[in-house]
Amino acid sequence: MLDSPPATSGFAQLVGFRLAAWREGYAEVELDLGPQHMNVSGAPHGGVLATLIDTAAGFAGCHCAVPGHKRRAMTLSLDTHFVGRAKTGSRLKCIARQTGGGRNIFFATAEVRDETGVLIAQGGGVFRYRGNSGDPRGETSDDQHSGDPA
Amino acid sequence: MLDSPPATSGFAQLVGFRLAAWREGYAEVELDLGPQHMNVSGAPHGGVLATLIDTAAGFAGCHCAVPGHKRRAMTLSLDTHFVGRAKTGSRLKCIARQTGGGRNIFFATAEVRDETGVLIAQGGGVFRYRGNSGDPRGETSDDQHSGDPA
Amino acid sequence: MLDSPPATSGFAQLVGFRLAAWREGYAEVELDLGPQHMNVSGAPHGGVLATLIDTAAGFAGCHCAVPGHKRRAMTLSLDTHFVGRAKTGSRLKCIARQTGGGRNIFFATAEVRDETGVLIAQGGGVFRYRGNSGDPRGETSDDQHSGDPA
Amino acid sequence: MLDSPPATSGFAQLVGFRLAAWREGYAEVELDLGPQHMNVSGAPHGGVLATLIDTAAGFAGCHCAVPGHKRRAMTLSLDTHFVGRAKTGSRLKCIARQTGGGRNIFFATAEVRDETGVLIAQGGGVFRYRGNSGDPRGETSDDQHSGDPA
Repeated sequence: MLDSPPATSGFAQLVGFRLAAWREGYAEVELDLGPQHMNVSGAPHGGVLATLIDTAAGFAGCHCAVPGHKRRAMTLSLDTHFVGRAKTGSRLKCIARQTGGGRNIFFATAEVRDETGVLIAQGGGVFRYRGNSGDPRGETSDDQHSGDPA
Repeated sequence: MLDSPPATSGFAQLVGFRLAAWREGYAEVELDLGPQHMNVSGAPHGGVLATLIDTAAGFAGCHCAVPGHKRRAMTLSLDTHFVGRAKTGSRLKCIARQTGGGRNIFFATAEVRDETGVLIAQGGGVFRYRGNSGDPRGETSDDQHSGDPA
Repeated sequence: MLDSPPATSGFAQLVGFRLAAWREGYAEVELDLGPQHMNVSGAPHGGVLATLIDTAAGFAGCHCAVPGHKRRAMTLSLDTHFVGRAKTGSRLKCIARQTGGGRNIFFATAEVRDETGVLIAQGGGVFRYRGNSGDPRGETSDDQHSGDPA
Repeated sequence: MLDSPPATSGFAQLVGFRLAAWREGYAEVELDLGPQHMNVSGAPHGGVLATLIDTAAGFAGCHCAVPGHKRRAMTLSLDTHFVGRAKTGSRLKCIARQTGGGRNIFFATAEVRDETGVLIAQGGGVFRYRGNSGDPRGETSDDQHSGDPA
C-alpha cells in the first residue's frame, strides 16, 4: 500500500485498477478481473490490458520525491502485445519501468502478469512531460496552469 | 442504429461504448465522454482511446453477412497515437477499416474523432481469427467450442 | 522529381530509397526492390518496409517552404503492420501524411504500396522536432548547433 | 560465433548485421555502425534499429534443435521506441527474447544497446510461423513449398 497515493482518476474508479507500488522509474498497477472487464469471448478486453500498461508506464516516469509536488505527463504513443489469456477472478499486476528519456520525453515498458506469473500482455509507451514535470522535483499545484501544446 | 447488434460485453457495458455502424471491413464505435472516462489531467484516459480502437478495429474484420452466424477474433497487437485532446461531453466516434489479411490473420486501422471532426487518436491492430471465423460465412454457436491455441 | 532534394543520408544511399514528392504535411518515398532488400524467404525484409515508413513519415512533418531553411526531427516511436507481400522487381511507394502535432511533437502515418496498388505495409510514427524546427519557417544551418536532449 | 549460421539474406549482407548468438527463445544480432547506417543528423537511421529488432526478434522464435531442419516466420507487426543515440563506430548488439506464443503465432521483445551498455532502442514484434514451423522440430527444405496465406 502506498503512503500517499496519487489522486484517483475517473477512469481508475470506473475500471477499478490501483497503484500498488511507486518509486523512481518504477510503478505497479493492480486489477482484480471481474465480468465487467471481459469481452464477449470471456477474456479481458484488450482495452483493459492497454489501460493497465498506459497507466503503469505513465506512472513509472512521474514519481516525485518532493513532498506535495507532482509530475504529470501525457501519452504520445502506446503499443501492446496480447500474449496470454487471463481468467475472471484473476488478480492482474502490471509492472512498468522507465527505460530512458530526459526533460521533455520519457519511455517506459510494462508487463501484465496474472497471480501465477503467466505473462498476459506486454507493451510500452512514449510520454511527454507536461509543464515543468521533466524536472524530477516536479511542480506545485500552482505551477500547473501552464499550457501544454504538443 | 444496428438491426442486430452483437452481444454486448461486460467491458462495453462498463465503459459505455456502442457499435454504431458495421459492414464488411468497416465498423464505427461511439462513446459519450463523461467524467468516468477521464484521467487526472481532465483528458480521456489513454486506455479509453485504446479501447475504442481495439474494439472498432476488431469489429471491422468480423462482420458476417450470414444471419445467425458470427465471426470471432482475438487481438494480437494494438498500437495507438494520441494526437489531440477531447473534452468531457464530447461524443467520440471511432471509425475502423480492415486493411488486409486472410483466413487466419487480419489487419485494421482506426481513427477516433470528436463531433467537430478533430482527430483525437489514431492506431491499428493485428488480429487472429478464432476457430473457423476466417471464413466470411462465420460460424454457428455450435461451432464455437473449438480451442484456439496461439 | 524534386526541385531541391534534401541532403541524402548514408542509409538512403545504401538502401537506395529516394524522396519522390514533398509538400507541407506530405511525403512520398520510393524504392525499387532488388535482391539486396530481401529476407531469406524472398520477401522484402521487415526492416526495409519499416525504413520506408520511418523516412516518409519523418519527411511529412519536416517540409519547409522557406528557401535555404530546413526542419529536422527525430523519431520517438515507430509501428508497422506487414499486410501484403511484394516481389523483387517491384517499385514500392510509401505515402505519408502528418496527422497532427505542434511545436514540439508531430504524428504521421504511412502506407507502402507496390506499383499495382497492393498494400504491402502500413504504419506510423511519433517524432520530436529538433532545435527550433517546430517553427514552420525552419532553421538556417547556423541555427542547428543547438542541443536536443530528450 | 555460431556453429551453423543460417543462410544470410540479401538485406543482411547489404546492411552488414549478423546473428551472434542463437538458442531456443533467444537471439543476438550485431552491427558495426558505419556512415552508411546514418541519417542526415549523424545518428543511426530509425530503419537500421527497426531492422535489428525485427531480425533478432524473428530469430528468437525460430531456433531449431534438429540438425538440418529450419523454422521460418513472417513478421505481422513491429514496434520500436528510439530511446538513446548511438555514434558511428559503435558496435550495436540487439538481444531478443521470445515472450510467448504457440503453434501459429509468437511474440518477442528486443533491446538494442551500444558497447557501453547504453539502451539505444527497444521494441518487439508479433510473428506468424510459416508452413509447419510452429513445430519446434521444424521442417526440412522439402517441406517448405507449402503456401502461407495470411
